[in-house]
Amino acid sequence: MAVSSSSSIRDLAVRAKQAARTLRSLPTAQKAEALRAIAAQLRLQQDIILAANARDVQAALAAGLPGHMVDRLRLDARALEGIASDVEAVSRLPDPVGESSAARTLPSGITVRQVRVPLGVLGVIYESRPNVTVDTATLALMSGNAVILRGGKETVHSNAALEEAIHAALHAQNLPAEAVQVIRDPARERMLELLRLDDLVDAIIPRGGAGLHRFCVENATVPVIVGGIGVVHLYLDGSFVQHGSDVQKAADIVLNAKTQKPSACNALDTLLVGRAALPKLPEVVRPLLQAGVTLKADAESLAPLAQAGLDAQPASDADYGTEFLALTASLKVVEGLEEALDFIAEHGGHTDVILTRDDAQAARFMQDVDSAAVMVNASPRFNDGGQLGLGAEVAISTQKLHARGPMGLRELTTSKWVVQGDGQVRS
Amino acid sequence: MAVSSSSSIRDLAVRAKQAARTLRSLPTAQKAEALRAIAAQLRLQQDIILAANARDVQAALAAGLPGHMVDRLRLDARALEGIASDVEAVSRLPDPVGESSAARTLPSGITVRQVRVPLGVLGVIYESRPNVTVDTATLALMSGNAVILRGGKETVHSNAALEEAIHAALHAQNLPAEAVQVIRDPARERMLELLRLDDLVDAIIPRGGAGLHRFCVENATVPVIVGGIGVVHLYLDGSFVQHGSDVQKAADIVLNAKTQKPSACNALDTLLVGRAALPKLPEVVRPLLQAGVTLKADAESLAPLAQAGLDAQPASDADYGTEFLALTASLKVVEGLEEALDFIAEHGGHTDVILTRDDAQAARFMQDVDSAAVMVNASPRFNDGGQLGLGAEVAISTQKLHARGPMGLRELTTSKWVVQGDGQVRS
Repeated sequence: MAVSSSSSIRDLAVRAKQAARTLRSLPTAQKAEALRAIAAQLRLQQDIILAANARDVQAALAAGLPGHMVDRLRLDARALEGIASDVEAVSRLPDPVGESSAARTLPSGITVRQVRVPLGVLGVIYESRPNVTVDTATLALMSGNAVILRGGKETVHSNAALEEAIHAALHAQNLPAEAVQVIRDPARERMLELLRLDDLVDAIIPRGGAGLHRFCVENATVPVIVGGIGVVHLYLDGSFVQHGSDVQKAADIVLNAKTQKPSACNALDTLLVGRAALPKLPEVVRPLLQAGVTLKADAESLAPLAQAGLDAQPASDADYGTEFLALTASLKVVEGLEEALDFIAEHGGHTDVILTRDDAQAARFMQDVDSAAVMVNASPRFNDGGQLGLGAEVAISTQKLHARGPMGLRELTTSKWVVQGDGQVRS
Repeated sequence: MAVSSSSSIRDLAVRAKQAARTLRSLPTAQKAEALRAIAAQLRLQQDIILAANARDVQAALAAGLPGHMVDRLRLDARALEGIASDVEAVSRLPDPVGESSAARTLPSGITVRQVRVPLGVLGVIYESRPNVTVDTATLALMSGNAVILRGGKETVHSNAALEEAIHAALHAQNLPAEAVQVIRDPARERMLELLRLDDLVDAIIPRGGAGLHRFCVENATVPVIVGGIGVVHLYLDGSFVQHGSDVQKAADIVLNAKTQKPSACNALDTLLVGRAALPKLPEVVRPLLQAGVTLKADAESLAPLAQAGLDAQPASDADYGTEFLALTASLKVVEGLEEALDFIAEHGGHTDVILTRDDAQAARFMQDVDSAAVMVNASPRFNDGGQLGLGAEVAISTQKLHARGPMGLRELTTSKWVVQGDGQVRS
């Protein structure tokens, strides 16, 4: 069953393309059943999977990997059960494949419609977390796609064991095991091969840091969906701090935006404060500082913070337009909405938020800001597939082509034109 | 007004991005008015434009360019009027920008929707026809995008004159001239610069031959929409040739598919004949041969053709899976539908047609074939923006990401998530 251990990446992609032909015509119920079978195999093979994972953890410790990275690759029975039940959750999501636009009969007499179909073969390249292996495989299968997975070299044993479990389930369902293939050779040359198979692979989805995304964009001839990278802004307007309860709300949102998961791409980077809101700034950012956040503030905001006994650092130019991915944020005073919009037009594009009680301002912000997600009076942390109601996500796209924002099952599909006639020719 | 003559491509793209911010919020009526102003300027500046075009034609003749290429770049008063009235037609198309999905309030209390917005800045690279300059500029403007155009070096004077006319119209409408910029330096290094501006340009759309597309895919870091390349198949099933009138229909469709515009990407390449249809093959292909088409036939089909006094050539393996773009087609006998489907799964993907009178076969073909357009009983030449009801097209995508098939105004847009809350944070 080690389909991917002894063959070239091209061979593997040829088999994936063959499997994709079977997958694209599978009824929803059969895909859902395959996912339930995968969940069952994950539970059945728990001991084997955890033993394989323990080998990865041991190797990582021996290699002196930092603690937080070892944590990310570690599985236990509870984590594996969580992965299995996530698979079952995906099996219950609505299937976008087969959805059709209304059929229209055109003046030539032909009847045309667009039908949603799977993308075909996906290449997903990611770093150390083994849950991504199962996550991505099941989202791909549920949307009728074959997938080639290239995980980090730190999880090679875990991924092999997870692949075996998935293959056992696919075999039992009489489905082609080549629908899910893990590249077991961690050499970078294998990844490069994958990135250039544009005759066989329909999309590359990197899941990882900016370096991985850049590597894919620079080297791929297969279309790449770039995601998860970008600067998050929150503009606090004076109209939002007229009442004590709103000042509290602003403080809660800013705290949530920055500290709920500082390593996430939708965590706050830059707080823009309207001049009229400046008197309330100490109250808004006090919880942030208490939570250990380093604030890089411009000259105008440093003074009132210092007066309130709050300890911020002076910002440099490099602190704006920067994604921190850590307990650091930058702070800048703007005259009002228009200056905030100009600033966001230059530095934004991922998730940008306004806190305002002025409906005209909110409307102008929603119109002018061109980001994957534009928000009024809510935490930017809601820019997430689960939080936006997609049920699950394979990645967050920050490019504009194909998908923008969280990518769920629908974003793993494309469309085809279906034309029916009775002998029509073009005149 | 020669904004693009003396600055780097990056400078030009920075200005395009600024212009895009204005364009994305323009009401439909204002965009339509700008297009009407462009049509008026094209008519007003007819003499200047035709004189510039005459310089290009003269240079092309002096350089010994082949006649059909000189024809493609030549403009006259009638052609220019056609271009102007096409601009007016685009101004009447429905505007996809601002369309919104139904707003949904999620369990967290936030209300979410997806709103259609322009892509931003497009880079369009094309070969010699000057009408593409105006066509592309107006489709981009009507969908709220800024565009950077890189035409062929043979049309440099025509494109400069057309750019001046467009700029005059944009100025008169108080719109930024940088919304439409032509790269006037024909050096390949300038095109390479454009292909790598992924921080400023949102999509590259090549319009030209396979070589141009390949060059873009190999060199771009900006996402590329690849199109217009692929092999077109038509499977003739035995059920379609039971009656004389249907045999005539089959002959008409095959003739239309191959000869109406042999240089088009949606022209027929390979005719697959079900064994049961073989006795009628001579009647079906006779008009093709009379029209001067070279038929490359497999051994099984050569015999009945020769018996009918029809002159085909023996096919080699290289004649299958090949896009001819000329008055040549290949011919192969298959047992029936399933063998045709296997063949198309290997070689198809652009436009694939079945001629059948069996509804179950038609359904199976529409389900199994994964091409930009799948057709039953109609000519593949209908795979075209105008013919499929889009009103106009900027290109035909043959990739699966973002757009598949003809790209109209809608395919020049993307979406953003708009989230409204009242202080919600993520728990």
